[in-house]
Amino acid sequence: MSFKVVAQCPVTGARAGELVTSHGVVRTPVFMPVGTQATVKAMAPFELKAIGAQIILGNTYHLFLRPGEDLVEKAGGLHRFMNWDRPILTDSGGFQVFSLAELRTLSDDGVVFRSHLDGKRHLMTPERAVAIQEKLGSDIAMCFDECVKYPSSYEYSMEAMKRTIRWARRCREAHGRQDQLLFGIVQGSVFEDQRLMCAEALMEMDFPGYSIGGLSVGESHQEMYRILDCLKGVLPQQKPRYLMGVGHPSNLMEGISRGVDMFDCVLPTRNGRNGTVFTSRGKLNVKNLSLAEDFTPLDPECSCYACRNFSRAYIRHLYKAGEILAMRLCTWHNLHFLVSLVEGARRAIIEGTFPEYKERFLRVFEGDSADG
Amino acid sequence: MSFKVVAQCPVTGARAGELVTSHGVVRTPVFMPVGTQATVKAMAPFELKAIGAQIILGNTYHLFLRPGEDLVEKAGGLHRFMNWDRPILTDSGGFQVFSLAELRTLSDDGVVFRSHLDGKRHLMTPERAVAIQEKLGSDIAMCFDECVKYPSSYEYSMEAMKRTIRWARRCREAHGRQDQLLFGIVQGSVFEDQRLMCAEALMEMDFPGYSIGGLSVGESHQEMYRILDCLKGVLPQQKPRYLMGVGHPSNLMEGISRGVDMFDCVLPTRNGRNGTVFTSRGKLNVKNLSLAEDFTPLDPECSCYACRNFSRAYIRHLYKAGEILAMRLCTWHNLHFLVSLVEGARRAIIEGTFPEYKERFLRVFEGDSADG
Repeated sequence: MSFKVVAQCPVTGARAGELVTSHGVVRTPVFMPVGTQATVKAMAPFELKAIGAQIILGNTYHLFLRPGEDLVEKAGGLHRFMNWDRPILTDSGGFQVFSLAELRTLSDDGVVFRSHLDGKRHLMTPERAVAIQEKLGSDIAMCFDECVKYPSSYEYSMEAMKRTIRWARRCREAHGRQDQLLFGIVQGSVFEDQRLMCAEALMEMDFPGYSIGGLSVGESHQEMYRILDCLKGVLPQQKPRYLMGVGHPSNLMEGISRGVDMFDCVLPTRNGRNGTVFTSRGKLNVKNLSLAEDFTPLDPECSCYACRNFSRAYIRHLYKAGEILAMRLCTWHNLHFLVSLVEGARRAIIEGTFPEYKERFLRVFEGDSADG
Repeated sequence: MSFKVVAQCPVTGARAGELVTSHGVVRTPVFMPVGTQATVKAMAPFELKAIGAQIILGNTYHLFLRPGEDLVEKAGGLHRFMNWDRPILTDSGGFQVFSLAELRTLSDDGVVFRSHLDGKRHLMTPERAVAIQEKLGSDIAMCFDECVKYPSSYEYSMEAMKRTIRWARRCREAHGRQDQLLFGIVQGSVFEDQRLMCAEALMEMDFPGYSIGGLSVGESHQEMYRILDCLKGVLPQQKPRYLMGVGHPSNLMEGISRGVDMFDCVLPTRNGRNGTVFTSRGKLNVKNLSLAEDFTPLDPECSCYACRNFSRAYIRHLYKAGEILAMRLCTWHNLHFLVSLVEGARRAIIEGTFPEYKERFLRVFEGDSADG
């Protein structure tokens, strides 16, 4: 057994678990910082450890195009290449092939696409996606899937979902690395019957974990929560559940409430580079004129390096001056904020106080503006 | 006495000293990383301490324009604003007014110029430059000077040098902070008689330290060394000597040989951001194709964070991918390289082996290319 639930909230069903990987145990629920190109943007590995990151994500599509999985394999795998000795999860490239790449030709065999970097043509198949991830050597790999855009017609989503099931079977067969867990991805857009059909089919293949893909692609929060509610009682209790690409603080709380164990999102790093930070009282734009002479930390309740050492006025100055340290400090703070928020949720689940934890966080975070 | 020479090389005259400032003792010779806009580009304060930076530089011109000396004063001074508790040296803004700003009108009173940021008109005078630096609260301040371009005519250089002397007198009179050392700046382009005239006049005003400005502005290395040679026996032995804006490794060795105690330069940080690093075997362009599968460190003889943890192949990948970590690692390495090189020179002076240290370094650094 690679996963076990160690505590569960009797009110919401939120779970605290432990996921065993080749590079150590991940305590869930967990937020995974995204390291698209073999680096979490603006961060160094020791900083990720300082904020308590347990596991990070790498993007198969990007690493396949540059520097290429063969180079990473020669370097001794992704862990050694980027000097990260804790667990790594890789996505399958499916999402990026369908969102970033150009001129796609889709068939049941796979997808022919043009690189967004140099326009070169490539073929991606389920077997190829698995082989690349095996060379990268991630601890957790994903099946190649078709992620439809929002909105999609019921018919098109059905077709893509069925293809995702057929591709999952091929990934399962192609996958050989014993030290790597392969997760199936549940698709089906916002259609509950399709989501259930996909989940049932994947569960028959008995994956060690299940991802929920195709959410946070434009649908409302209520639609996202409805899909999570419908999958909550269906996915196996003793397997980890990973909600892909979701990282807004409120979504994390609601996802955990609905039994999700793992999350990733570019939001904290992208927002950080753009000068938007999360605080316990909501979002804050560090470029605001109102912060020009504000010598308090980004978030007075935060204990991260940025908040312990620098003022809003200083970070605002760094931003206005185009300094790299601005992006570093805001990224550092945002990742610390999300990792700590989810860590806190885990503690609350274990202590039996998760509903209060969630309610208190959302009341202050949603109810107030940190700008004023 | 704020400065004492603790050892001197009997062959070259290179000095090891101790400079007492309000934020601690600086052991010389010393290389000072440049923190133009209240941050050393791409670095955090704890990283500067990790590489052994004893003192950093701030640019008065930039800080005056943004965020303004009044804001920095409100923050508790530059040290608190940027969270750096070791010594800080500020330049006077003279160099930038004459190189960066636009539409200058120069008179004996001072310089009217337009900001390179927004075109706004400002007047900078010797009194103003001192007042700004007093508000910034640096440990070491500079007199406002006129730095002429290279080449300049003998006549124009003479005029500017004499103005620099008159301005130095006004700075001396305007300066009031007892916890701040004010250095005079020797000008005079590549003309030895002018340099000597300027040095004599400044020495009559008895500054606690002397800067050598207007070098490394386009003249040959031989011309620079000739000026240093001519000032070597003239500047007072018991006062620190600061060669402004010079940071090429070979120039550091030759400067130390000629009795210089302090150096600053943007070269290591600017080169780092552009992907050029110093190694014990010369310069290396990390973007070179030849490094694509090179899994050795930037410099096998270096003990910095970048060299202990990452390969050339990885850093090359980060550069090609436009990742911030590339700039961070190359900047970190370059600063570590120069700070360590000068630290090593200090040890060698104390141990009586400086000529060998210098000769060995230059033979390997100049004689070889790290690219091959």
